[in-house]
Amino acid sequence: MELNPKILENIRKVEPYVPGEQPQNRVIKLNTNENPYPPAPGVVEAVRNMDVDRFRLYPDPTASSLVNALSEYYGVGEDQVFVGVGSDDVLSMCFLTFFNSDKPVLFPDITYSFYKVWAELYRIPYVCPEVDEGFRIRREDYYRENGGIIFPNPNAPTAIYEELDFVEDIVSRNQDVIVIVDEAYIDFAGRSALELLDKYKNLLVVQTFSKARSMAGMRIGYAIGAPELIKYLNDVKYSFNSYTMNQPSLVYGVEAVKDKAYFEETVGRIIETREWAKKELKELGFVFPDAKANFIFATHPEYDAKELFEALKKENIYVRYWGSRRIEQYLRITIGTREEMEELFSFLKRYK
Amino acid sequence: MELNPKILENIRKVEPYVPGEQPQNRVIKLNTNENPYPPAPGVVEAVRNMDVDRFRLYPDPTASSLVNALSEYYGVGEDQVFVGVGSDDVLSMCFLTFFNSDKPVLFPDITYSFYKVWAELYRIPYVCPEVDEGFRIRREDYYRENGGIIFPNPNAPTAIYEELDFVEDIVSRNQDVIVIVDEAYIDFAGRSALELLDKYKNLLVVQTFSKARSMAGMRIGYAIGAPELIKYLNDVKYSFNSYTMNQPSLVYGVEAVKDKAYFEETVGRIIETREWAKKELKELGFVFPDAKANFIFATHPEYDAKELFEALKKENIYVRYWGSRRIEQYLRITIGTREEMEELFSFLKRYK
Repeated sequence: MELNPKILENIRKVEPYVPGEQPQNRVIKLNTNENPYPPAPGVVEAVRNMDVDRFRLYPDPTASSLVNALSEYYGVGEDQVFVGVGSDDVLSMCFLTFFNSDKPVLFPDITYSFYKVWAELYRIPYVCPEVDEGFRIRREDYYRENGGIIFPNPNAPTAIYEELDFVEDIVSRNQDVIVIVDEAYIDFAGRSALELLDKYKNLLVVQTFSKARSMAGMRIGYAIGAPELIKYLNDVKYSFNSYTMNQPSLVYGVEAVKDKAYFEETVGRIIETREWAKKELKELGFVFPDAKANFIFATHPEYDAKELFEALKKENIYVRYWGSRRIEQYLRITIGTREEMEELFSFLKRYK
Repeated sequence: MELNPKILENIRKVEPYVPGEQPQNRVIKLNTNENPYPPAPGVVEAVRNMDVDRFRLYPDPTASSLVNALSEYYGVGEDQVFVGVGSDDVLSMCFLTFFNSDKPVLFPDITYSFYKVWAELYRIPYVCPEVDEGFRIRREDYYRENGGIIFPNPNAPTAIYEELDFVEDIVSRNQDVIVIVDEAYIDFAGRSALELLDKYKNLLVVQTFSKARSMAGMRIGYAIGAPELIKYLNDVKYSFNSYTMNQPSLVYGVEAVKDKAYFEETVGRIIETREWAKKELKELGFVFPDAKANFIFATHPEYDAKELFEALKKENIYVRYWGSRRIEQYLRITIGTREEMEELFSFLKRYK
């Protein structure tokens, strides 16, 4: 029995995003920028003490406990925080809510690949200015007329961090549109654009629990911005699904935010491992832009990236390889534990 | 500091759906069709045994453990099951994926209010044929040309269940479009349209963990249909967010599906309470269509529905009231435990 061709006509066909491999066997997993350390101890306790009977009820649609924890942590109003099912959910809602213009949205040619997918899904015109030969965003490219701007800082997959004056320059020159700074990796990098929120109402900062907070498996992301923007985001969110955040996300999320000491300790350890890993990679002849995220975007003048990627995979070491234009010879290597990185380097020292 | 009016121009404004009240204090909560019984004992155990370290990793993007559990339970292929963050997420994806025509989508005037919200959000034309004076869907209204059809069975908020031949009549006469049967309440009612899947490729059946499976707080819903349809749904889903189902949903969801005996026992108890509650309501002079869901949609010739709603609320008994056209004098009462219903009736006996 075939599908009726008339049905096919009215189906929306999209080119789906291909996520990084999620091998289910035991491997050294340096391919999707996860945190090598477990969530905060308070999360473990919250899991053990979970009131399971509460699952029969709908969760709080306003996610107020989690919103409140984030607003306290960042010293912003509760009406300035929007939460969603991972920063992908938050960013997708932002595209739908704020990029509703006929003018093109701008984002770099080398960046998080989901931006293009959402723009196409929502039929938003877009233009992708090329990053320079060192993979840096050229700020002048964002001075032209546009329907909105989005870029990650640090950028992905390059790990390049731009200082706050660079970000402010783009935000301040585009006060007629929304500028979204996607700060998934900010905790490994430097100052956040959150500092600019008091000055700019057109700025939205998006962050996630998936990286520095060790909670990729919980799917929690958030946006912080002016109350008016957050209100519009919530209106769109409620029109999809009133209850997007399940009860465990709400309860465990709060615990992950609370424990600042644990957060700083594990982030510190990852940065330490990264700085050491950079030295090791350099000694091995690898070349990479200065990495300020929990990953390094590296190439080697003598190795073919795809061959190295495959060789690593045979050793059960997973890194990320795209093979797309301009980055055919690059691998993205997530910072794991010191021990995991040592295994990686021990293989690289034997390679070729 | 005001929001720049130019920014406002390009923001998508939607009329958000208003969910039922979620009082946080101790009340008799008969307003959002939740299950009065806790999730299956296996869920409690899974919560206690959760591997919290796993939270640091992304969940399986294909949700294969949950898809597998559902495919085994319903005796369908794994490629016939799509899972999402509650049936709202699933239905919203279905609207976006399948209702992509210039012809109007059809759904009843009195039905789940989210259908209208999604149609407007995605700018899908729609027509809402009126249900008859007894609130029954008129099947002839669905014989006209259209871009797709969706209706709940049992319908909400009327609780009216239509037999399988009625559903099949609509599905078979509309083989050029997708017909979605929203079976959120089917386990309290009768035969599911799942039986028709072998015959019709244009049929999609959507169900949820929020009602009969006592897991509203976990946000799990699913669609079952032809593999081709499920593939298109997954493509759209991956273009939003690769990882919509968090780790607890995947692990606890499987446990909720496994325990058939507990499921049947608690559903049986709710049906028993409902049948008794119908008799009690009748004796008190209430009038209602025969209720086949876990709620009763009732009116009383001598009471004003809004006044009764407010009076109940003062007693900390929450039911649902809309006051919208044709149903101004109706209340939707969720079936709680026998004890909760006794408190409701004890108040109603004293009322006026």
